[in-house]
Amino acid sequence: MQRIGIIGGGIRGSMYAHSLRGFPGADVRAVCDLAEPVALKVADDFGLSAYTDHRRMLAEQELDAVIVATPDFAHRQAAVDAASAGCHLLVEKPLATTREDAEAIAAAVRAAGVQCMVGFENRWNPAVRQLRERSAGGALGRVLTQNILLSNTYFVPTTMIGWAAKSSPAWFLMSHTVDAAAWVSGRTVTAVDARGSRGVLAARSIDTWDVVHALLTFDDGTTANLTSTWVLPDSMPSVVDFQYQVIGEDSAMYVDLQDQSVRQAGPDGFRWPGLLGGEIDGRLQGPPTWMVQDFVTRLERGEQVGPGLDEGAAVTDVVVAIHESLESGNTVPVDSGSRG
Amino acid sequence: MQRIGIIGGGIRGSMYAHSLRGFPGADVRAVCDLAEPVALKVADDFGLSAYTDHRRMLAEQELDAVIVATPDFAHRQAAVDAASAGCHLLVEKPLATTREDAEAIAAAVRAAGVQCMVGFENRWNPAVRQLRERSAGGALGRVLTQNILLSNTYFVPTTMIGWAAKSSPAWFLMSHTVDAAAWVSGRTVTAVDARGSRGVLAARSIDTWDVVHALLTFDDGTTANLTSTWVLPDSMPSVVDFQYQVIGEDSAMYVDLQDQSVRQAGPDGFRWPGLLGGEIDGRLQGPPTWMVQDFVTRLERGEQVGPGLDEGAAVTDVVVAIHESLESGNTVPVDSGSRG
Amino acid sequence: MQRIGIIGGGIRGSMYAHSLRGFPGADVRAVCDLAEPVALKVADDFGLSAYTDHRRMLAEQELDAVIVATPDFAHRQAAVDAASAGCHLLVEKPLATTREDAEAIAAAVRAAGVQCMVGFENRWNPAVRQLRERSAGGALGRVLTQNILLSNTYFVPTTMIGWAAKSSPAWFLMSHTVDAAAWVSGRTVTAVDARGSRGVLAARSIDTWDVVHALLTFDDGTTANLTSTWVLPDSMPSVVDFQYQVIGEDSAMYVDLQDQSVRQAGPDGFRWPGLLGGEIDGRLQGPPTWMVQDFVTRLERGEQVGPGLDEGAAVTDVVVAIHESLESGNTVPVDSGSRG
Amino acid sequence: MQRIGIIGGGIRGSMYAHSLRGFPGADVRAVCDLAEPVALKVADDFGLSAYTDHRRMLAEQELDAVIVATPDFAHRQAAVDAASAGCHLLVEKPLATTREDAEAIAAAVRAAGVQCMVGFENRWNPAVRQLRERSAGGALGRVLTQNILLSNTYFVPTTMIGWAAKSSPAWFLMSHTVDAAAWVSGRTVTAVDARGSRGVLAARSIDTWDVVHALLTFDDGTTANLTSTWVLPDSMPSVVDFQYQVIGEDSAMYVDLQDQSVRQAGPDGFRWPGLLGGEIDGRLQGPPTWMVQDFVTRLERGEQVGPGLDEGAAVTDVVVAIHESLESGNTVPVDSGSRG
Repeated sequence: MQRIGIIGGGIRGSMYAHSLRGFPGADVRAVCDLAEPVALKVADDFGLSAYTDHRRMLAEQELDAVIVATPDFAHRQAAVDAASAGCHLLVEKPLATTREDAEAIAAAVRAAGVQCMVGFENRWNPAVRQLRERSAGGALGRVLTQNILLSNTYFVPTTMIGWAAKSSPAWFLMSHTVDAAAWVSGRTVTAVDARGSRGVLAARSIDTWDVVHALLTFDDGTTANLTSTWVLPDSMPSVVDFQYQVIGEDSAMYVDLQDQSVRQAGPDGFRWPGLLGGEIDGRLQGPPTWMVQDFVTRLERGEQVGPGLDEGAAVTDVVVAIHESLESGNTVPVDSGSRG
Repeated sequence: MQRIGIIGGGIRGSMYAHSLRGFPGADVRAVCDLAEPVALKVADDFGLSAYTDHRRMLAEQELDAVIVATPDFAHRQAAVDAASAGCHLLVEKPLATTREDAEAIAAAVRAAGVQCMVGFENRWNPAVRQLRERSAGGALGRVLTQNILLSNTYFVPTTMIGWAAKSSPAWFLMSHTVDAAAWVSGRTVTAVDARGSRGVLAARSIDTWDVVHALLTFDDGTTANLTSTWVLPDSMPSVVDFQYQVIGEDSAMYVDLQDQSVRQAGPDGFRWPGLLGGEIDGRLQGPPTWMVQDFVTRLERGEQVGPGLDEGAAVTDVVVAIHESLESGNTVPVDSGSRG
Repeated sequence: MQRIGIIGGGIRGSMYAHSLRGFPGADVRAVCDLAEPVALKVADDFGLSAYTDHRRMLAEQELDAVIVATPDFAHRQAAVDAASAGCHLLVEKPLATTREDAEAIAAAVRAAGVQCMVGFENRWNPAVRQLRERSAGGALGRVLTQNILLSNTYFVPTTMIGWAAKSSPAWFLMSHTVDAAAWVSGRTVTAVDARGSRGVLAARSIDTWDVVHALLTFDDGTTANLTSTWVLPDSMPSVVDFQYQVIGEDSAMYVDLQDQSVRQAGPDGFRWPGLLGGEIDGRLQGPPTWMVQDFVTRLERGEQVGPGLDEGAAVTDVVVAIHESLESGNTVPVDSGSRG
Repeated sequence: MQRIGIIGGGIRGSMYAHSLRGFPGADVRAVCDLAEPVALKVADDFGLSAYTDHRRMLAEQELDAVIVATPDFAHRQAAVDAASAGCHLLVEKPLATTREDAEAIAAAVRAAGVQCMVGFENRWNPAVRQLRERSAGGALGRVLTQNILLSNTYFVPTTMIGWAAKSSPAWFLMSHTVDAAAWVSGRTVTAVDARGSRGVLAARSIDTWDVVHALLTFDDGTTANLTSTWVLPDSMPSVVDFQYQVIGEDSAMYVDLQDQSVRQAGPDGFRWPGLLGGEIDGRLQGPPTWMVQDFVTRLERGEQVGPGLDEGAAVTDVVVAIHESLESGNTVPVDSGSRG
C-alpha cells in the first residue's frame, strides 16, 4: 500500500485524490495547501488530514509518495523537500519553469534514491497513445512533421487559474505538446524558433503572452509546429481546443479533441461536453486518472515509473528556449546533451 | 473473490476474460466453447481451464458467476443451467430472442435466487451516460423524441459473426438502442411500427433483414425513431455507425460515435480507429470492460447488479414486436404489464 | 426577357427579387403583398412596382411569369389567377396543402397552357445533387434506404414565420425531404406510416406538431425514414439541421449540412454560419437562387421547366398522407396513379 | 463582349474555358498550349482556335484579355507578351516565382496601360470571404493570429502536375495562404521564419520541399502560422486539406474545408467529394469560376479588377522570403516598401 500525500489542493490536487479513492494499492492520507480552507475542503471530501505547511505534512505523516500539484512555477521546494524526505514523486507538468529548478529537483531525487514521474498526462490520452503506438510500431513510416494546436479560452488565464501572469500558454499548454511531439516521433529537439504576441491579456492585468507559435527542429532535420493561445472566446463550446496531426512518410493521423462527439444545446448555450473523463460507477476515468493510477501500480510492483526526470528536464529546456526565442526573435539551440 | 466462468469463447467471451485479467475481485477460472480450438485458445491466452460442455464446466468448477457470451439466439440453455447451478449471471444482450426463452431464463434465475445482469453495455458508454444523466437530472426537460442510428458494414453479418442469418439488425443492433431509448427517456414502449427490406444479404446466403426502421411510441405519447442496417459499405472508415440525438423540451444533445476524433490514412485506406476502448497500461478500457468490472465489483460488495431481467425482457418484447411489425406491416402493441 | 411578378414579399419573395437582380433574361417588374409596407419595402429595395392585390398586378403589368411566394397554405388563388392570366409559374413548395388546391392549380395551368415549376430548391443544393447524380448514374447500386433529418430551431415556428399554426414540420420541412427522397432514389412512394407528438408548440399558442417521423415505402419495397421537428433549442449553432444518408447496395453517401465547415465563436455565442449561399461580388448565390435563375433561363430558351406539377402533386399527396397517418395511427396508402 | 484567349491548356486553362462558356460578356476565342494535343483537346471541347505559340495567338486573334494559366514558374513571357499586345491579364497565382519576373510583368502591364488580376481564387471562396468580411467589418476585433494549413496528397506533386520539382508546397499552396492571411487581417508581412524538410519527394525524383512551415510577422506585431505539405497519403478522402483558424480579440472563426459535408463510401474507397464547385444546370460553379466571371464582368463594366499587381508582388516577395528562410535558417525581413 502506497501512503500518499498531495501538495496543492486546487483542481488538480483534488482530482488526484478523487482518482485514487478506492484504487487498489493507494492510501491517500493527507493534503497540503497554503490556503487552509482549500486544504480543509479536499481533506473533508476525501477523508484526509489537512496541512498548510508541506514540511509539517512530511514530518508527521509517514508517506511513501507525494504528488506535487502546486502551480507551474512552484514545484521546486515541494519536490525537493518531499524527495529529501524519502518520498517518490509525481510532479505536475512542467517539472519546473527554470533549468535551475529542474536541476535542483533532479539533484534531490538522485540524492534520495527515489523515483520521480512527471505528469505528462497526454501519454495516457487514448488518442495520443494511438499516435505514439502507430508511430513506434512503424505504421506511420518516418514522422515528417507534426502540427499541434493546444489552446484555451480566456476562462483559463482569467478565471480558472489565479497565477496565469506567472505562467504562459507555452508553460501551461506547450509543456504538454512539446513532450507529445518528442514522444510520438521518438526524436530529440535541437532548436526552437518561436514567435507570438502579447497585449490582450496584459490589458486585463495578466501580463503574459496571448499567442505562442513554436517551430521545433529535431535531430533528424524534421520539424513540428506548435501553437498555443489563451485568447479563444469564452463562447467556444469547449474550454480546450486540442488538434494534433502527424504526417508520416507512409500514413497520416489526425486527432481533433475539441469536439469529442457529444454536443449539447440548451438554455446555457452550446457546449461540447467531452467524451473522455467523468465518473463511471463512481470511479473517475480519463487521462490524468489513468496516469496517477499507473504511478501507484508501478510503485506497488516495484517497477520504474515514467516519464521521469529526463523527459521533464527536456521539456523544461525546450519551453525555456521557446521563451528565449519569443523574446529575442532568434533561433535558440537546445542542447539536451549538456545536462548531466 | 468471484470465481467466474465464461460460456462462449468468441470475440466477446475473450474480451471479457481480457477485461477481468488482474481486476480486483475477479478470478476467471474457465471458458467453454463448443469449438474446442476456440476454447483452448482463450484458455491459453488467459490461463483458464477449457471446456466444450458448459454443464461439465459448471459441475467441475466451483463458480460464483457465469458470463453467457454465446450467440444471440443461444443464451437460454447456458443461462438456465448456470443459474440452476447457483451462479450469478451476466448474459449478453439481447437476453433472449423469444419471449419463451426470456421467461425460462427468468424462471431459473428466480428459482435459484441468483442475480442476473443483461449486457447492455451502452449504459457504460460515456456518451450515452451523459444523455441519461442529463435527461434524468432534468437538464433536457421532457424528452420529446430520439433519433438513433446504429448500423454495421457488411463485414459484421458476412464475416465477423457466423450466425447472422439467425439474427438480424434488430436483434443484434436495436437491442442496444431500444434499451438506450427507454433508459435515456425513462419511458416505457407501448407500441411499435417497423418497416424494412431484405434481399441483399439474402443474395449472399444470409437470409435476414438488410434494413430495419422502427418507430417506438412511449407511454407518454412521445416517440423514438430507430434505424439499424447491416449493409453499409466495407469502405466506411468504421465498422460501426452510431448516431444518437435526443430532443428535449429545453435542450437537445447529439452524439456521433462513428468518427471518434481519430482518423488514420495509410496504405490500408482511411480509418476511424475510435477513441473509446483499447488498452491503457495493459488494462483494457471501454464500455463492455467497465460493465463487466461493475458486475464483479457489485457482486463483491453484495450489491444489486443491473440492468437485469426486467430490462432484458422489456427489450426482448420490443424487438419481438419490431419483427412482428416488419412481417405484418401493422402497429404492434407492447404490453410489458402482461409479464408476471 | 422574362417580365416577372412576385406574389408574396416576405423572406422568400425578397430573396427571389435579389436572386434575379441583374440576371440575364430576368426583368422583375412588380411585387405584391397583402401588407402594403412589406410590398413597398421590397419594391423600394429592388426598383419594382408595389401591389397589395395580385389581380391588379396581373391586370396592370404585362407579365410573362409569376413567382408565388405566399405562405404554404395560400398558393392556390395566386397560382390559379396568375396561370389564368397566361403567366408561367414558379410556386414555392409545397405546391399546395390539400389535394383540392393542387388539382385546382394543375387545372388552371393546363387550361392556360403555361408552365409550372415547383420550388423544391434542394434539387439545386450541391450536396443533394451529388446524391441524385451518383444514384442516377448507378454508382450507389440500388438504393436500399434513406435517413433524412430536416429540422428547425424554435425560432422558425415562433418568430420567423407568422403562420406556423397553419403549417407543420411536415408541410414546411418534409415537403423538401419527401421530394428529395423520391428524386434521389427514382422511386414512387406507395405508403406512409407516421408518428409524432404535439403539445410544446401548442403551449406557446402554435397548435401544430412538434415532432414528425415518417416511414415511406416505395414501389420496389424499399424505405426511407424522414424526421422533422420544430423544437430544436435556439442555442443550436444553426437554425437548420439537415442530415441525409443514402444507403445503396454498393455505396453509401452521407451529407451533414448542419455544420457547413464554418464556425464562429464571438460575443453573440457560437454559430455555424453556413458555406452555401450569400453574395459573391454582389450576386446572390445558393440553391434557391440557382433554382429561380434556372427557371428564367429555361423560359428564355423555350425549354421545359421542372420539377413541375406531377412532382408537386406527388409531394402534396405524400404529406397529406403523413398527416392522415399521424392522426389515425394507421398506414396510409398513397395512390399517385389515381390522379390524372 | 470581351474577346479572350487562354495560355495554358491544362486543368486550369480548361476550367476557365468551362467557367466562361455562355457567361454574359465573355467570348473565349482561343487557347494555346505548348503541347499541341492539349491545345486541340481544349479547343475542341469549347469551340476555340488552338495554338502552340502564344505570340501567334496574340497576333492572329484580336483579343481584349488573356488568361495566363501556365505552370507557376512560366508566367513571365506569356504575361509580358500579352500585356504588350494590349490585353488585360488574369494571371494564375503566384504572379511569378522570382522578384525579377514579377517586376517584368508589372513593367509590361504599366507600360501597356492594361489591367492585371492575379488569380488568388480563395478571395472568392465563400468560407474565406466570411473570414474577410467579418474581420473587415470589425466582428472579430483585432486579428491576433491565424493558423492556416493547406496541403495536398502525394497525388498532386507526383501525378497531377508534371512540374512539381520546379515548384514547392510554398509556391503552389502558400501563395494562396499568404495572400489570404494578409487579406483577412488587413496587415502587411514584415518578416518570415520558415522551417521544413525535404527528402521524401526527392527520393521519388521530385527534388523539392516535402514540408514547409512559415511564421509570418505582420506590421502590427501579430503573427500567422502557415503549413503546407505535399506528402499526405493518397488514401486521404480528399486531395486537399485546407483548415483555417482566425483568432480575433473578440471572436474566433474556424474553417475546415477538408470534409465539406459530403462523404461517400463505395467500391473505390471513402471520399469527401466536396460541396463547393461542380456544375449546376450545366454552368460550372465554385471559387475559380466566380473569380474569372468577376474578371470578365468588371472588364465589361470598365471597372478595376483585383487583386492586382501589388497583391501579386507582395505574395511573391513573401514566398521568396520563405524559401530564403528555409535555406538559411534565418529570419528574412520582407520590405514591401522597397518595390516601386
